[in-house]
Amino acid sequence: MKAARGFASDNNAGVHPQILNAIAEANQGHVVGYGEDPYTRSAVAKFEEHFGDEIEVFFVFNGTAANVLSLTALTRSYHAVLCTQSAHIYTDECGAPERFTGCKLIPVPSPGGKLTVESVRSACHGIGDQHHVQPRVIGITQATEVGTVYAPEEIRILSRFAHERGMFVHLDGARIANAAVTLGQSLREATRDLGVDVLSFGGTKNGLMGAEAVVFFEKELAENFLYVRKQGMQLASKMRFMAVQLEALLSNGLWRSNACHANQMAKLLEEEVRKIPQLEIVYPVEANAVFVRMPREMISRVQEQYFFYLWNEEQSVVRWMCSFDTSEEDIRKFTKLVRETLYS
Amino acid sequence: MKAARGFASDNNAGVHPQILNAIAEANQGHVVGYGEDPYTRSAVAKFEEHFGDEIEVFFVFNGTAANVLSLTALTRSYHAVLCTQSAHIYTDECGAPERFTGCKLIPVPSPGGKLTVESVRSACHGIGDQHHVQPRVIGITQATEVGTVYAPEEIRILSRFAHERGMFVHLDGARIANAAVTLGQSLREATRDLGVDVLSFGGTKNGLMGAEAVVFFEKELAENFLYVRKQGMQLASKMRFMAVQLEALLSNGLWRSNACHANQMAKLLEEEVRKIPQLEIVYPVEANAVFVRMPREMISRVQEQYFFYLWNEEQSVVRWMCSFDTSEEDIRKFTKLVRETLYS
Amino acid sequence: MKAARGFASDNNAGVHPQILNAIAEANQGHVVGYGEDPYTRSAVAKFEEHFGDEIEVFFVFNGTAANVLSLTALTRSYHAVLCTQSAHIYTDECGAPERFTGCKLIPVPSPGGKLTVESVRSACHGIGDQHHVQPRVIGITQATEVGTVYAPEEIRILSRFAHERGMFVHLDGARIANAAVTLGQSLREATRDLGVDVLSFGGTKNGLMGAEAVVFFEKELAENFLYVRKQGMQLASKMRFMAVQLEALLSNGLWRSNACHANQMAKLLEEEVRKIPQLEIVYPVEANAVFVRMPREMISRVQEQYFFYLWNEEQSVVRWMCSFDTSEEDIRKFTKLVRETLYS
Amino acid sequence: MKAARGFASDNNAGVHPQILNAIAEANQGHVVGYGEDPYTRSAVAKFEEHFGDEIEVFFVFNGTAANVLSLTALTRSYHAVLCTQSAHIYTDECGAPERFTGCKLIPVPSPGGKLTVESVRSACHGIGDQHHVQPRVIGITQATEVGTVYAPEEIRILSRFAHERGMFVHLDGARIANAAVTLGQSLREATRDLGVDVLSFGGTKNGLMGAEAVVFFEKELAENFLYVRKQGMQLASKMRFMAVQLEALLSNGLWRSNACHANQMAKLLEEEVRKIPQLEIVYPVEANAVFVRMPREMISRVQEQYFFYLWNEEQSVVRWMCSFDTSEEDIRKFTKLVRETLYS
Repeated sequence: MKAARGFASDNNAGVHPQILNAIAEANQGHVVGYGEDPYTRSAVAKFEEHFGDEIEVFFVFNGTAANVLSLTALTRSYHAVLCTQSAHIYTDECGAPERFTGCKLIPVPSPGGKLTVESVRSACHGIGDQHHVQPRVIGITQATEVGTVYAPEEIRILSRFAHERGMFVHLDGARIANAAVTLGQSLREATRDLGVDVLSFGGTKNGLMGAEAVVFFEKELAENFLYVRKQGMQLASKMRFMAVQLEALLSNGLWRSNACHANQMAKLLEEEVRKIPQLEIVYPVEANAVFVRMPREMISRVQEQYFFYLWNEEQSVVRWMCSFDTSEEDIRKFTKLVRETLYS
Repeated sequence: MKAARGFASDNNAGVHPQILNAIAEANQGHVVGYGEDPYTRSAVAKFEEHFGDEIEVFFVFNGTAANVLSLTALTRSYHAVLCTQSAHIYTDECGAPERFTGCKLIPVPSPGGKLTVESVRSACHGIGDQHHVQPRVIGITQATEVGTVYAPEEIRILSRFAHERGMFVHLDGARIANAAVTLGQSLREATRDLGVDVLSFGGTKNGLMGAEAVVFFEKELAENFLYVRKQGMQLASKMRFMAVQLEALLSNGLWRSNACHANQMAKLLEEEVRKIPQLEIVYPVEANAVFVRMPREMISRVQEQYFFYLWNEEQSVVRWMCSFDTSEEDIRKFTKLVRETLYS
Repeated sequence: MKAARGFASDNNAGVHPQILNAIAEANQGHVVGYGEDPYTRSAVAKFEEHFGDEIEVFFVFNGTAANVLSLTALTRSYHAVLCTQSAHIYTDECGAPERFTGCKLIPVPSPGGKLTVESVRSACHGIGDQHHVQPRVIGITQATEVGTVYAPEEIRILSRFAHERGMFVHLDGARIANAAVTLGQSLREATRDLGVDVLSFGGTKNGLMGAEAVVFFEKELAENFLYVRKQGMQLASKMRFMAVQLEALLSNGLWRSNACHANQMAKLLEEEVRKIPQLEIVYPVEANAVFVRMPREMISRVQEQYFFYLWNEEQSVVRWMCSFDTSEEDIRKFTKLVRETLYS
Repeated sequence: MKAARGFASDNNAGVHPQILNAIAEANQGHVVGYGEDPYTRSAVAKFEEHFGDEIEVFFVFNGTAANVLSLTALTRSYHAVLCTQSAHIYTDECGAPERFTGCKLIPVPSPGGKLTVESVRSACHGIGDQHHVQPRVIGITQATEVGTVYAPEEIRILSRFAHERGMFVHLDGARIANAAVTLGQSLREATRDLGVDVLSFGGTKNGLMGAEAVVFFEKELAENFLYVRKQGMQLASKMRFMAVQLEALLSNGLWRSNACHANQMAKLLEEEVRKIPQLEIVYPVEANAVFVRMPREMISRVQEQYFFYLWNEEQSVVRWMCSFDTSEEDIRKFTKLVRETLYS
């Protein structure tokens, strides 16, 4: 099974060859640990190329940490974070955000995986009342957990709403590259220029071995983040090996080509799925995810050959993800199997 | 400067070539994330080869996390952890143990970097008194932070003391390999057989890119550790790349040969230092660290060429570490520079 | 305004005279602090009279603490607490439960302020999945925050559901006395006999100056609660003055007569409200609260004379509470004012 | 035994009659809860009389909470609090400060129970180093836990040291009244005028039933303290009964006369002790505590008649406290018993 490729998650893929090369090349002699090395400085400079000056960048091990530590920097424990009910921070991080920030996460009903100003406004109550947590962060995910993509204006008005109230916008960008590709934006246009305050920049799902970045678009928000990261158990000693992964991803358009490929494969998968009348596409395919409603009894039979996640058991919806290394042939083989399962 | 090697820390070294190879070989196709993959299962089996059955093993990103999450598994927030004043958990983890466990860490005076039953006993007070935190864990480091090594019997009696009182022993084994080599022990003899309950097994300082393991020697202590790790932001999605590092380290004696070499280099460095009358060896050189008292004005002059840490400013003591890749020539070059600095 | 009585909250009332007397009588000489005194022992014995043997009782300062520390005793930080969206722990404690336990509180849609097995079941997912918090406590409030009362059988089946899954039932009994009166139950019948594991026993809203109790119906759950309470900043030094309040409340049926009176006054208020056609009773009046929908413009005009809380701004619903000291005349005066406001 | 008075602690005493009267007088009609009532406003105004304008005052239930919540307001979790090894926050609060703030408390060796600039300076290291907690608060206790009193200048230079480094001074004033009496200072002179930033103002040990205040001498430090208090489970619903206690204590010099009496009784007790050659006064008697070294075998025999705390078992030192209600006759009876025990 080792050499096979499936559709369970973009993090089931391996590492892009250019990333492995970058790691191997950095394996020369000794350098100071914990980020005080030239590789890390160079990677930070690469982020500045993409996102502009006056930013602060910190590398961490995984996406949960990027999110949780971002929120830690933005909050005190009596604050609240508003997010969708399907947000990774709300449902998939085993309560790490609450545990580490002390904050309440307030789930906002969000069809299509997106917050709107209306939904956020109705969740912003009890302002100034000592009995209530105080709304502090609007947490959005781009591309969303259901594979949709916010239009730039949708993020811009959420940012404006937040800033008018002394709140912040955090963007969980585990798949920000996929969204930027969809929208034809640069990474900066997709984040900072829309008013986002802090970004969890995802690398692992886009071809890295394991490295993410927390990017602050206002330096003062990052003032003590060195301590937050260390206390959050996210300071790598051999930082260079994370730094070079991220630098390589941001070099020669690798972030874009990887994401672009994954998105195209999702489009192809969508097309194939649409040809099968018993299957229904549940969300617009705007990034690298395809959500499909399929007859319940088929699910486990297909899963015997391909592991993937049941997204919503009650509604019989499954999630199929494409990655930087998904091939057209993978999709043909997979949809062939689905079809055969259906008609057998 | 890139290709040079220094003595600042064993984590300033790069990655052993066999480790890089193992990573490259694991980069085949898709596997399920988060530890449900064959690479991880195989690595766990390798730990069982070394440590015996009835253990539980979890991989985490770094040593701070291994320590903090181990302590989390063993405590409730009203407990106390007894450790030396020089313990990594006490001084070098930015308060992460307190932050994450809620516990108080009680520093016990410890000449030579080692706890003794006497010192621990005198710190165990207020038992059963609701105003006081309740001692729960004895936290030791092997090899210690000052490069010394507990004799097996010293650990055994600490374990006995702990277990008689319903307490646990946690061993910070960032350099357990170096200690085992010194003592001529297997990894199991150096830990489990001495009564240690939970081990932070260090890999990064012994040639890995970045991977550590938490090893429970009683399965029930690990009962909910999956959640502790995830909530502690230490669950890797592409777990295979951590697993293969640890498996390679435990295969073909690599853990032992790497540590053995580092220890031998430290012995050689010690010899060279002893030839310089203005320098004084401060602690017995029993692992891969050499602590040296040197004239204050020399320190910064040598640091101009080689970065290393001032261990104790008041006492003018510096720390020099050897690693798996330190060469005899490195030591000759370095001590030559020291000598020249002294006489210039 | 001092001597007036309103309908804002049962905690706007003062202290029942018998309680003040009990405090004054306990003010004799010195006694050991922190609960090791005869007054506290006597009060605990009084709880045993009401709730039976094999319980553990701890006094704390307020209801938020009783709830939060109860949950702390029942959980680890990766657990989840299921409760209604209107639960005091969810909306009115400024995130203290999340902050102190580290747990996620999962809000369950609950018309009428009550959980049902169906609603709880659908919120119990991700069992055994390391990415998800693990459901551990079903938190119910009796009488509920909207003045309704669970039937005994409704609690019993929630308890059964919980215990079948290794979960616990916590009952926020800030107004348990009012519910027991409504149901004609003893305090034990209303709690322990229905399978409740831990009770926040409310005193302050029922005529005390300020004292609540955490009552464990299984001793082992309370094993380390002394430390939880102290670390939770809830250990009173002059405990006797809290103990005698609770003992007096549980003596000579004071808990029952106070609650009975408050309930009767709420019934009378309900009757008066029903006579005013522009007002609508929103929830069944089963305890001491009356929730009323009234024309928006009236609300602030009545509030000029009587402070009370707007419960739901969107739906124009207000909350009026009766207490142990509410008089029939108070109700007549108040409803007269309401009527005058309406027709002026 | 009820009507007897002992020397175990000043919190074993009851409530001063003027305090009970104030409570009884406040028991009139309904007032809004949670501090929005005229009694609380009046008590706050009384604090302003004593401490001057531009302060913020919050009432909490006990001293541990006053300390812990003060520290919460001054810190983030990566900060450190420097305090003496005998500090109440370090040894007697069951780790609540660590648990709630996440901070490390660094114990500074402190003969005589006092911090000095020298001792604090040597504990202030690792500034700016991400591996180390960052010193943020100097926590002092006045009168100290061993019954000594800082000279005003001693506090002033600690404050200066702190403020020069962007640090704060918190004063645990559980017995600030006793210290002010000793020094002939007003409460303001004893705190704010010496550079203290936040004060835990003690009431309970000076004749109240149970009420303490957190006093901020810079308003901005208190900006979000309403939420800190509520989330810290320290918001009283029937706040008026705490407010009137504190107001009465600060009226008509009651705080001073109570403390003065306790101090005088301690002086008398000291005199009597000095007459007994087998006893040794261990610390200068500068407030209301007398620490006595006595032959080990005597201790338990005296404890059979009078409960009191063994302060230091190894050194055979006990602590005897005087309170507002200690009488000369109490002291004579007690020292007579001690003498008889000695010679029997």
